[in-house]
This record gives sequence, structure tokens and C-alpha cells, in this order.
Amino acid sequence: MTKGKLFVISGPSGAGKGTICREILDEEKNLRLSVSMTTRSPRQGEENAVHYHFVSREGFEALIAEDGFMEYANVYGNFYGTPKKQVVDWMEQGINVILEIDVQGALQIKKNYPEGVFIFILPPSIEELKNRIMGRGSETEETMARRLGAALQEISCIDQYDYRVINEDLRAAIDRVRAIIKAEQCKINGEEVDRIIHRYKEDL
Amino acid sequence: MTKGKLFVISGPSGAGKGTICREILDEEKNLRLSVSMTTRSPRQGEENAVHYHFVSREGFEALIAEDGFMEYANVYGNFYGTPKKQVVDWMEQGINVILEIDVQGALQIKKNYPEGVFIFILPPSIEELKNRIMGRGSETEETMARRLGAALQEISCIDQYDYRVINEDLRAAIDRVRAIIKAEQCKINGEEVDRIIHRYKEDL
Repeated sequence: MTKGKLFVISGPSGAGKGTICREILDEEKNLRLSVSMTTRSPRQGEENAVHYHFVSREGFEALIAEDGFMEYANVYGNFYGTPKKQVVDWMEQGINVILEIDVQGALQIKKNYPEGVFIFILPPSIEELKNRIMGRGSETEETMARRLGAALQEISCIDQYDYRVINEDLRAAIDRVRAIIKAEQCKINGEEVDRIIHRYKEDL
Repeated sequence: MTKGKLFVISGPSGAGKGTICREILDEEKNLRLSVSMTTRSPRQGEENAVHYHFVSREGFEALIAEDGFMEYANVYGNFYGTPKKQVVDWMEQGINVILEIDVQGALQIKKNYPEGVFIFILPPSIEELKNRIMGRGSETEETMARRLGAALQEISCIDQYDYRVINEDLRAAIDRVRAIIKAEQCKINGEEVDRIIHRYKEDL
């Protein structure tokens, strides 16, 4: 059986990676979303095992100790991470896994799992990114400047990725990510080659 | 401007690469078919510059002499080849080019143009390939055995390709090739990276 692939969808906050992932998960069979683990408290409307696996600090640290994360980070005192086991189990079963994550996390995953497929979602422009962040409200001029600076910093890591999708028109962006997922499943890998040749030979 | 890409669609005769190419060309904008050149005479219904560029032996040899082919071969006394100029011109204009070609020709192109995207169309089985070839009629038992042997020989070159698409269900196979063409246009290349980063920086 062919193993599943890991698709890492990443990019600056506000680029639209969350929306794209949700739409693709709705449409694709044989594709599951990896749910992150965190020590922060659930917010209103957040469900355990859907939005996050909510765990205690002790639980999180125990998993760190047994090398149970593909990546993790401490953000302002809360831990966030991608548990390894579920992702690996799905891939072993031939199921493709999608992972929505910030750029820093993606680069950490790439170090440990370079055979993943790394997709960078770009906003059409910094101007448009600004509009989108403003649309969410709650930004002061200072935090806005910091966020745009961070976005630029993240975009400058794009050479570490395999694909880039500009999210100007959402429908077109979703189509592109779906095409990448489909195309990647047609990629030839050395291990499979022998199986293919063998199968047709037996057949003759 | 981004340069166009060369998509080489190849595989054993009877795998369905011709049908797949025709359908894709009908649907895709910004994609053109490279028309081969030959010294053989046009058959009933074949149009010059559509099915082939029909030229004299002298014309063909003159183009060989000026290194005007991406690949060419002499098959039972007739020359067949892929003229370089049209393909290169289109790519320079940002147009993607599709090339339907046998495995031997594809491998020759790969030597000269490894940055092409090489797609192998596979029949679902040798049994099914046999049925398809028989459906076309005009095969003796001996020529059939030779063709199936040749197909197997060609399939054993699949490790030279980037993608494989099994043509079991024609619609699904077309979808996959289209996905590959779309995904390849999202691939990140080093040259583009600097442009991207620069553009967003300017923007800030």
C-alpha cells in the first residue's frame, strides 16, 4: 500500500490558510486534519479534539519528554505542538494528512520531516493583508506594524517551501491547493517503481 | 514574467496519451501542443501543421544540421522529430507546452531538457493494454507479442519520469494530468523567490 503524505499548509496570519484548509477537508476524501495540542484554556465555542487537544502542562511536558511532537513552541507561556502519533498512524494507513501551521512551526517540521509537502499561502499584497487584519478588528497601529513586519519576515522564508499559492481569489486558491494534493499523489518514488514494473511483468 | 513549462506526456502506445492530451488542450488556456515534424507522407485526413509538419528529407536534415530538434529519430526510413524553436518561443512568452511522445523520444528530451515535467501514462494492466490494441484491429499474434514486450520495456523506464498516471478511468486520468499541470505552476523556484520577497518588501 502507498503511504499517505503530509501536506503542511503555512503562511502569514491573515493569508487565509485556515479557510483554505477547511474547504479542502470538506471536499477531499482520504485527507485528515492534524489537530494541535495546547496547554492554553479553551475559548468560547472551542471543542476538545476538534479545535485543539487541550491538555495540562504536565501532560504536554510528558509528551515532549517522550519525543512525541513533530514540532512545538512556547508562545507567551502557553505550549502549542503537533503530536506525532496520530499523523504517523494515518500516513501508515495510506491516509493523507493536512497540517495548518505558522511558518516557524513549518520550518521545524521540515527539519524533522523533509519528505512532507510544504505549501506557502501568500496574501495578494501586504496592503491586502493589512485590510484583512483590520477587518478582524482589535489591532492598534503598533500591533499592526508588528504583524506586517512579522508577515514579511515569514514571506522571506518562502524558499524553504515546495509550492506557493497566492490567495487573491479564494476559489482559485483552493483549486490550486487541491491540484497540488492530487499531483503529489501521482509523483513517482523509487520504492514504488519496482512494484510497478514487477506488477506489469507478472501480468505479461 | 514567468516562463512557460514543458510537459512531456509519454507512455506505451495504447495507454491513451493521445486522448488525454486532446481533452486537456481543449480545456486549458495557456497551453499549446507541440506539433512534430516528419518526412513521411500525410495519410488520409492528416493536415499539415496540425497532425505533423510534413517536410522533405532535405528540409529535415537541414534542421538537424542546425541543431533544430529537441529530439528526433529515424523509424523504418522516415524521420520524426520535435522542432525546438516553436517550443522555446512559446515558453519564453510564458505559454506552457505539451508534448505527446513515445518513451524513447521522452528520454532523449530529458537529456537535453531535464527541467521539463515528465508524465508517464500507464495502462491499468498489460491485459487491458492488449484489449485496447486488439480493439484497434490489424494485429497478428506476433506483432501483438512484440508490442506488449515493447510496452513492458517502456514501463521499465518509468523511474526517469516525475509523475505516473494510471489511465483506468479516462475522466480521472485527465483530472490528474490537469492537476499536475496546475500544481507545477505553483512550484517555487529560486529565481522567483527573490522577486516575491522584493515585491512584498516594496509594498510595506
